Amino acid sequence: MKIAIIGAAGMVGRKLAQRLVSEGALRGEQVSSLVLADIVAAERPDGFAGETVIQAGDLSAREEIDRLVAARPAVIFHLAAIVSGEAEQDFDKGYRINMDGMRRLLESIRAAQAADGYLPRLVFTSSIAVFGAPFPETIPEEYFHTPLTSYGTQKEISELLLADYSRKGFVDGVGIRLPTICVRPGLPNKAASGFFSGIIREPLVGREAILPVSDSVRHWHASPRSAVGFLLHAANLDTDRLGPRRNLTMPGVSVTVAEQIEALRRVAGEKAVALIRRVPDETIMRIVAGWATRFDASRAEGLGFVADRSFEDIIQAHVEDELAGTVKAG
Amino acid sequence: MKIAIIGAAGMVGRKLAQRLVSEGALRGEQVSSLVLADIVAAERPDGFAGETVIQAGDLSAREEIDRLVAARPAVIFHLAAIVSGEAEQDFDKGYRINMDGMRRLLESIRAAQAADGYLPRLVFTSSIAVFGAPFPETIPEEYFHTPLTSYGTQKEISELLLADYSRKGFVDGVGIRLPTICVRPGLPNKAASGFFSGIIREPLVGREAILPVSDSVRHWHASPRSAVGFLLHAANLDTDRLGPRRNLTMPGVSVTVAEQIEALRRVAGEKAVALIRRVPDETIMRIVAGWATRFDASRAEGLGFVADRSFEDIIQAHVEDELAGTVKAG
Repeated sequence: MKIAIIGAAGMVGRKLAQRLVSEGALRGEQVSSLVLADIVAAERPDGFAGETVIQAGDLSAREEIDRLVAARPAVIFHLAAIVSGEAEQDFDKGYRINMDGMRRLLESIRAAQAADGYLPRLVFTSSIAVFGAPFPETIPEEYFHTPLTSYGTQKEISELLLADYSRKGFVDGVGIRLPTICVRPGLPNKAASGFFSGIIREPLVGREAILPVSDSVRHWHASPRSAVGFLLHAANLDTDRLGPRRNLTMPGVSVTVAEQIEALRRVAGEKAVALIRRVPDETIMRIVAGWATRFDASRAEGLGFVADRSFEDIIQAHVEDELAGTVKAG
Repeated sequence: MKIAIIGAAGMVGRKLAQRLVSEGALRGEQVSSLVLADIVAAERPDGFAGETVIQAGDLSAREEIDRLVAARPAVIFHLAAIVSGEAEQDFDKGYRINMDGMRRLLESIRAAQAADGYLPRLVFTSSIAVFGAPFPETIPEEYFHTPLTSYGTQKEISELLLADYSRKGFVDGVGIRLPTICVRPGLPNKAASGFFSGIIREPLVGREAILPVSDSVRHWHASPRSAVGFLLHAANLDTDRLGPRRNLTMPGVSVTVAEQIEALRRVAGEKAVALIRRVPDETIMRIVAGWATRFDASRAEGLGFVADRSFEDIIQAHVEDELAGTVKAG
C-alpha cells in the first residue's frame, strides 16, 4: 500500500510516518511506499524497508498536487496548513494554502478518478477553530460553526468541500478536528497556546516555564500519540458508518491549568511544579478566553476514536516518547 | 444613493428593483441610480426618475464583477445563483457561479477598498439548503450546517466568506437564509418544490394543480413581498448589532399542505380547492422528506425582520400583487 502525507515535515506528520513504519501495515495491507510531502524536505523515517519518496514543494500549487496524486496513493493524510496567526496576518496566503490547496487536491483526485476510477481515502486534519465564541461550556455535536479567524473559516470551508466531494463519490474523505496538541515537544514558540505545553515540557527537564493565565482556565487536550492514533483510525474507518457527515470532533481531555499542574506534581514532584512562574499576560488571557473548553465528542467515540484517559496519561506519553521514560527527579 | 442588484432579472430581483423605485429611498437616502446586473438584460423598472444601468453578462467573471464594483454602489444585493438541481447536475458550473462568483465579488470589493476605502453593504441571499437532514422538527438558531447538496455547500461557503470578509472590515455583509418563496408567480416549473406554489397559484385562476405529496407534509414559506422586505431590512440594518455572526435564518410561516389548502378555501372557496388533484409522486415525496419544516428564527425577529402573519396572508399578498386583487369566484 502506498501512503502519502502532506505536511510530513511537521511534528505530527513526522510521528505519523514513524508510526506507519513501526506498525508496518494500514487497513490490513503492508505499507510498501511512503510519499512524504511538505514545503521543505521531510526526514526519512528510521528503519523503513519500503520505498520513500520525499516531495519538497508548495503543495497548494497545481503541479505539486498533481505530482502527488499521479503516484495514486491509496491513503492521503492532509495535515498541511498555514497556522492561525499567520493566516490572520497574511489573508491571501492563508486562503491560498488552506482553502485553495484543499480544493486543488480534491480537484486533482476527481480528475484522476475520471481518468481511471481512482478513489483514495483522504484524511484531513481540521481544527476546533471552526467554532467561535460565545459557546456553551460543553459544545454539543450539532453546534454550529461560526469561526472567528480566517484560519477557522478556511478549515470549515475545507470540511464542507470534503463532505461534498465525498457525497458525490469523488473521494472517500474523513475530517477530524484535533484538540490542542499537548505536550508539544521542541522549543517554546510564540503561539498563544504554547504555555499549555510549556508548563509541562520545561519543568520535566528542570527548566522554568511561564504561565500567563489563571489556574482556572480550562482547555481541551490530546497527546501527539493520540493525534497519530486518531489519524490512523480515520484511515481505517468504515466510512459507510459516517453517512454524509464526514467531519468529526475528536475526543480529548478537558482540564483546567490547576489540574494540569496537579498531574505534573504526581508525575514529577514538587520541584517541577515550583519551576512554573506566574506572569499574567492580558493579551494571552483575552485570546484564550475565546477558546472552547470542552466538547461532546460522543460521535467519534462511538466510531472507536480513543482519547487519552487523563492529563496524567498525556504527561506519561510525553515522558515515554520524548524523554526516553526519564523524569528529572523533583 | 447608487444600488446594485446582481440577479436583477429573476423574480425576486425584479420585485426588489420595483420596490426600491416605489419607496424612492434606502437607508434614509434617495435612490439615484440602479445597476441591474444579470446574465440576461434585466427589465427597467417602471416610473424611475433616476439613472438605470443594465449590465448583462456573466457575473462570476472577474471583468463583469470589477465593472459592477467600479460603479461603487453603496449597497449591493447579491441574489444570483445556479439553482439546486442544476448545481447538482453540473458540478463545475455550480462551484464556478455560486462559490467562485461570491469570492470574486468579495475580492473585487476588497481591492476597491485598498484603492479608495470603499466599504459597501452587501446583502447576500443564502438558503435553508445549508441545513441537511436529519434534523429536529424545529431547527434551533445554533444548529450546525451539514448541507446535502452542492448548492447548499456553495451557499454555506459563501456565508463563511461573507462573515470572514466582514470581520476583517473588507465589506459590510449580511447573509439571509430565505424560506421557500410562495406563492411563486409565473408558469409551473419542474422544481421539486414547485407544487407548494402551484396548488395555490393555479386554482386561483381556475386551473387544475397537481399535489404530489401527502397533506401532512410541513414546510417553511415566505411571500415574495416578505422576501423583498427582508432584503430591504438587511440593507437598512445596523450591523453593529450582528457582531461577527453575519448570517441569519429568516422568519417564515410553517404550515402543512392541509393548512395551505384550508387557507386557499377561506380565500377562494370550495371550487378552487376542488381543482387540486392528488397524484402521489414517490420521487418528490422522498426529496421533500429531506427538507426542513420549521426554524427558530428568533434572532432575525429580534433584529426586526418580519414574516408573513399566516399562510392566508401569503395568499392575499399574491392576490394583491399578481392578480390585481381579484380571485376567480369559487
